[in-house]
Amino acid sequence: MKFVLAPDSFKESMTAKEAAEAMRSGIKQVFPDAECVMAPMADGGEGTVESLVDYTGGRMIRLRVTGPLGTPVDAEYGLSGDGQTAIIEMASASGIHLVKPQDRDPLLTTTYGTGELIRDALDRGARHVLMGIGGSVTNDGGAGMLQALGVSLTDEEGRELSFGGGALNRLRRIDVSGLDVRLRDTRVEVACDVTNPLTGTNGASRVFGPQKGASPEMVEELDRGLSRYADVIFEQTGRDVSKAAGAGAAGGLGAGLLAFLDAELKRGVELVIEYTALKEQMKGADYVFTGEGSIDRQTRFGKTPYGVADAARELGIPVIAFAGRIGEGAEELYDCGFTAVIGILREAGSLEQALQEGRANLAFAAQNICRAIRQASET
Amino acid sequence: MKFVLAPDSFKESMTAKEAAEAMRSGIKQVFPDAECVMAPMADGGEGTVESLVDYTGGRMIRLRVTGPLGTPVDAEYGLSGDGQTAIIEMASASGIHLVKPQDRDPLLTTTYGTGELIRDALDRGARHVLMGIGGSVTNDGGAGMLQALGVSLTDEEGRELSFGGGALNRLRRIDVSGLDVRLRDTRVEVACDVTNPLTGTNGASRVFGPQKGASPEMVEELDRGLSRYADVIFEQTGRDVSKAAGAGAAGGLGAGLLAFLDAELKRGVELVIEYTALKEQMKGADYVFTGEGSIDRQTRFGKTPYGVADAARELGIPVIAFAGRIGEGAEELYDCGFTAVIGILREAGSLEQALQEGRANLAFAAQNICRAIRQASET
Repeated sequence: MKFVLAPDSFKESMTAKEAAEAMRSGIKQVFPDAECVMAPMADGGEGTVESLVDYTGGRMIRLRVTGPLGTPVDAEYGLSGDGQTAIIEMASASGIHLVKPQDRDPLLTTTYGTGELIRDALDRGARHVLMGIGGSVTNDGGAGMLQALGVSLTDEEGRELSFGGGALNRLRRIDVSGLDVRLRDTRVEVACDVTNPLTGTNGASRVFGPQKGASPEMVEELDRGLSRYADVIFEQTGRDVSKAAGAGAAGGLGAGLLAFLDAELKRGVELVIEYTALKEQMKGADYVFTGEGSIDRQTRFGKTPYGVADAARELGIPVIAFAGRIGEGAEELYDCGFTAVIGILREAGSLEQALQEGRANLAFAAQNICRAIRQASET
Repeated sequence: MKFVLAPDSFKESMTAKEAAEAMRSGIKQVFPDAECVMAPMADGGEGTVESLVDYTGGRMIRLRVTGPLGTPVDAEYGLSGDGQTAIIEMASASGIHLVKPQDRDPLLTTTYGTGELIRDALDRGARHVLMGIGGSVTNDGGAGMLQALGVSLTDEEGRELSFGGGALNRLRRIDVSGLDVRLRDTRVEVACDVTNPLTGTNGASRVFGPQKGASPEMVEELDRGLSRYADVIFEQTGRDVSKAAGAGAAGGLGAGLLAFLDAELKRGVELVIEYTALKEQMKGADYVFTGEGSIDRQTRFGKTPYGVADAARELGIPVIAFAGRIGEGAEELYDCGFTAVIGILREAGSLEQALQEGRANLAFAAQNICRAIRQASET
């Protein structure tokens, strides 16, 4: 028997790796000789760095960078076991959790620290960047990141722009001659599940600005700034990022990544599945086990179990999904490659208790499903 | 596909019949053409009457009888669909819930009402009695029941004994000439999971007397009374009930049933399995589904899922057990014929919520297990 164990994390209970280990321990009780392929997954959001570092046997790199408000913050990113791939969450350097609500001002916040993380990864030899861009507190179009990587953004008088989305209204010229040359050999892939354009009604400023502290007036100023940014980019590179899907992600960081780092924007779970060669690993498997803390109707919209099931379906491999919570609409997943959705709770009680007992519960549920499977396949 | 659905009730959530229906609805989602044999079970305790009435398509009979303290109470018992079998819980007429704690006095409490239930069943034509004897508030050796059925228990002066375990100390003679003749053609089976003898250290009075309100002095008086009762029974019938296993059940009601009603004492779940011809129904089944509100190490000691699994094991049929709570030691059931033990909860939360959502949760879990089974048997 061959099992591929490709869960996401069970938030606040188990990392994806721990979940895969719990599944394995349950399986081994029933099929001691089974081959268990450990493939901790993620969907590009929280836990992605941890899962991919675990998956590759890599490590975390910690360093001090420029925070969203220009003051230092301690950030981290992952380096794969082979040292080739940096796994970066922009939020680690430029995230909303780093700035108190009353201090949030997207006219001023910068992605400079995110650029520093990339630079550090290049210094260490990485030539492949996987980036998660959720949870930003910025609206600068990635201008700060570009500055940290050697790009110069100047105003009418040739002065370097200060940090923040507000300064983009003074942008006149972008000079890429200083852009880190190592980026030419570097593949940048971005986990991006939003399709918002850079500007306009569905743009970064209008849709995401308010939650980053922008007043209605600030939103207009930010949108004008990004619009000017897009114009200058178009003038100088011929690339039109103003309408590109995903350019508006993370306060327009998507646009900066697309225009200057040749980034590929992908759905998070697809990116992780590709990077981990999950389909390759699935070949010849009898079962794929996946799971997440909660599974419901929303799971279909780019969550890990959905991506895993989709990949398995192409190969005709049955998928059993485990969850601590099975919400409304889980039945709709049957049409998406899910053989069964199994709850792991062993008794009624607080969420806290459920989280604490997650590993034991998952192992027990996996064991019992395996016992049912073994029985059914024998008869 | 043929499924036998033989759950106990999920206490405070579903009757056994409702649980079986929930299982069926889950199965039918996956195997629309499956044959589902409905076999709501019980273990002789609470819910047994309801399950067997449901099973036989019978009905409940309500009547006013003599309560434990001699005052009227409203009691009920079940009559099977064919009218042949009465399913009686002694507690309905003589139970501890009928007497307030401060009024409990086993020197005085009587099983007379239980005898009236039997008499009513005979009047309606029943010639088979299944009796559950848990939850008694009496310690009268079944003397009251016998009096209600025409037996005369008299003292030295030939006066009829008054109610209660205390009066047995004055017992001189038992006259069975008035015993209801219809009992000669009546089979009495008693669900009895305790093996206590009538008297002595492990006897009814010492072990169960205190929880029925007996002080240490009363316990001695009660034990002497039952001892005298056993002596008189032996003198007049040649039967020695003093040492018989189960004679001490329900305050010695076991002894009265053994000595005068030729009762067969059986483990509750075995009695139910026999009466419902469960093994017969299991023949040719692909799966047996069972379950109970809670499954744990204790399940092995005569609980319904254990009895069901034991019966299925003899026939080589796999058993899937479902539970709202899976406690410690459930793994020990694998050696007792259980293929798998499956939790039905869909999310963390209060017991109240879990009880309320029981039916939907059980149907969902059954559906998903069937989906896994179908998949496994196809590959």
